[in-house]
Amino acid sequence: MPASDFSTDEYADRLKRTRAAMDRQGIETLLVADPSNMAWLTGYDGWSFYVPQMVILHATGNPLWWGRTQDKPGASQTSWLTPEDLFDWPEEHVQHPDHHPVDSLVSLLRDRGWTRALGVEMDNYYYSARSHAVLDAAFGRDALTDATGLVNWQRAVKSPAELALMRKAGVLTAHMHDVLRAGFREGRLKHELVAEVQAAGVAGPGGLAGDYPAIAPIAPSGLEASASHITWNDRPLVRGEATYFEISGCYHRYHCPVSRTLYLGEVPPDIRRAEEAILTAIEETLARARPGVTCEEVATCVYESVARAGYVKGNRTGYPIGLSYPPDWGERTMSLRPGDTTPLAANMTFHLMPGLWTPDWGLAITESFVITPEGGQVLAEIPRGIVARG
Amino acid sequence: MPASDFSTDEYADRLKRTRAAMDRQGIETLLVADPSNMAWLTGYDGWSFYVPQMVILHATGNPLWWGRTQDKPGASQTSWLTPEDLFDWPEEHVQHPDHHPVDSLVSLLRDRGWTRALGVEMDNYYYSARSHAVLDAAFGRDALTDATGLVNWQRAVKSPAELALMRKAGVLTAHMHDVLRAGFREGRLKHELVAEVQAAGVAGPGGLAGDYPAIAPIAPSGLEASASHITWNDRPLVRGEATYFEISGCYHRYHCPVSRTLYLGEVPPDIRRAEEAILTAIEETLARARPGVTCEEVATCVYESVARAGYVKGNRTGYPIGLSYPPDWGERTMSLRPGDTTPLAANMTFHLMPGLWTPDWGLAITESFVITPEGGQVLAEIPRGIVARG
Repeated sequence: MPASDFSTDEYADRLKRTRAAMDRQGIETLLVADPSNMAWLTGYDGWSFYVPQMVILHATGNPLWWGRTQDKPGASQTSWLTPEDLFDWPEEHVQHPDHHPVDSLVSLLRDRGWTRALGVEMDNYYYSARSHAVLDAAFGRDALTDATGLVNWQRAVKSPAELALMRKAGVLTAHMHDVLRAGFREGRLKHELVAEVQAAGVAGPGGLAGDYPAIAPIAPSGLEASASHITWNDRPLVRGEATYFEISGCYHRYHCPVSRTLYLGEVPPDIRRAEEAILTAIEETLARARPGVTCEEVATCVYESVARAGYVKGNRTGYPIGLSYPPDWGERTMSLRPGDTTPLAANMTFHLMPGLWTPDWGLAITESFVITPEGGQVLAEIPRGIVARG
Repeated sequence: MPASDFSTDEYADRLKRTRAAMDRQGIETLLVADPSNMAWLTGYDGWSFYVPQMVILHATGNPLWWGRTQDKPGASQTSWLTPEDLFDWPEEHVQHPDHHPVDSLVSLLRDRGWTRALGVEMDNYYYSARSHAVLDAAFGRDALTDATGLVNWQRAVKSPAELALMRKAGVLTAHMHDVLRAGFREGRLKHELVAEVQAAGVAGPGGLAGDYPAIAPIAPSGLEASASHITWNDRPLVRGEATYFEISGCYHRYHCPVSRTLYLGEVPPDIRRAEEAILTAIEETLARARPGVTCEEVATCVYESVARAGYVKGNRTGYPIGLSYPPDWGERTMSLRPGDTTPLAANMTFHLMPGLWTPDWGLAITESFVITPEGGQVLAEIPRGIVARG
């Protein structure tokens, strides 16, 4: 995701919106450990998030990148920051029992005089309890404010440039599903099909280059599909089993996840009934998903359609998507579920997940869509019904 | 990684060793959030680590699995635990602003009376500062002991069954490098080559099925390669540039990472000199890496060989590998570097990383190996020198 995907003005606007949110929460200096947020603010990209790294955004000036010495050239290559904005911690502190990289962050913050009103992402994969303990010991608990999701919320409404990247991700996703439908047949070994589908997401149509998605293909069959997050294995596809593929193309780190269900043999009536309910749920949701409507109002379409068919959907039915790194392609802000009264706005993007899991099978038919004044508009055009073979 | 890859005795031995380590650290109940550790103790496998989940190991009895309701069927399918060992937190608490899943963990621990001498993995991606704050508020700081790496250390010496899986991962890695060498040519678009190489890691030779590796392919060219963790893009391979691929096959979650460097055109003398130094370093390291020798003694082989060629290697030169989940295939215990006096033992496994990064190019030739009384034995047979084309 080269920083050059977006204009200087767009980055300036992102900083401005983030600083306004900091101001509302009384935060003077924001420590951003979520790699999606780091990339959104600065363009920084690299598989370096397995060691501590952050973007530091003070009330004024450029953001600073802070990370491992070995990754500083990557920050220079991928972000719009200047060499003066890049700070590194000593290479010998990587995964060391007696040193912690965050010690060097403490020094940097002290040098700048940024030792109070610090915002930290308490509930993020890349801000560990240990990192927090080091900052707590240095600056005291009162200096640290929880800023989980602060930047994520600023990312909710997508710019035209971001939407263009998500539509390209959607082209990759559609191509992956084309390859999936073409290769799905009795006796096919699951891992061979996954290899083809993954390759289709990286080498897309017309030379379109895909990136690694934030979640590996989820592709369970039959009873396996009663579990939600089973990836794949080497078993052959057999008759009488539903398989669903939850997959996403990824273009310059932007995602467009879409699930489809495939079946070998004649689809049993209970699965057909569920399919019908889900297809109706999707149509009703897309019709209703306009600016000003709340997340829970949109979710109602799914719960009611599924209930009419005699099923109970026990989990949330969607979440925002966009720029992401492993292990999650969701933005972790809103949820399409009861109790979430956030109003939708134009150009917000969601993964609608009206999946159903019973003890015997799982059925996932999902769509990624953007909110428009005319309703939800899907980001990838893929035939929606169950693909039945044989 | 089905639990059935290993015998009941092997799991019992793992629990025993872990409990002995808990005992030494005064821990009565260990809360294991690292998905690699969860899998090693119970066999649990799934891409569910983006929400809070743990394995809870008390001084006696079966470990307990605790996770999201939606993932409980997956725990039942993949682990050796019994239904009575599985506990879930309410689906509606997923990424919710006002509830935290760890509240339900607090209740579970209280129900069991396990409220003191709790071990937590302070420095892990999947144990957030917020999770820790919830436990701290419930049980008090004195009830919580840092157990980062406790289970990881028990994993250092591999069983015969584990080594067999790592050798299968090595077969996949070797196949990926075969496909890489065959497809590397001038003008080739990088992402197309990556798509082929990734597919080779999933659909391996002789029907061998690969899993998703814990790190996506790192594949920088030319100046990009001065950065360590750049993945790939859509640019064509051009003459006069070194490209290195750091890639791993993954078999039932076990890894065997190997890097190779490829060059289009005649390899310049400075890169050849570095190659020579690295090849010597690898040979000397493998000869020296026997039980009883320390990590820093082994590392010396690399630093000295590279120094003789006039280069400085500024980072560690290896780390243990095995069972892993994103975002890291390292075990995060020992490091092959000065100051680490851990003695090697037979059947420990490492990724030896004598890579060199200069401001103008990067050169990575690495090996995954197992410690034997006769020295280090590579886990994948792949021609070691720079692959030069045209």
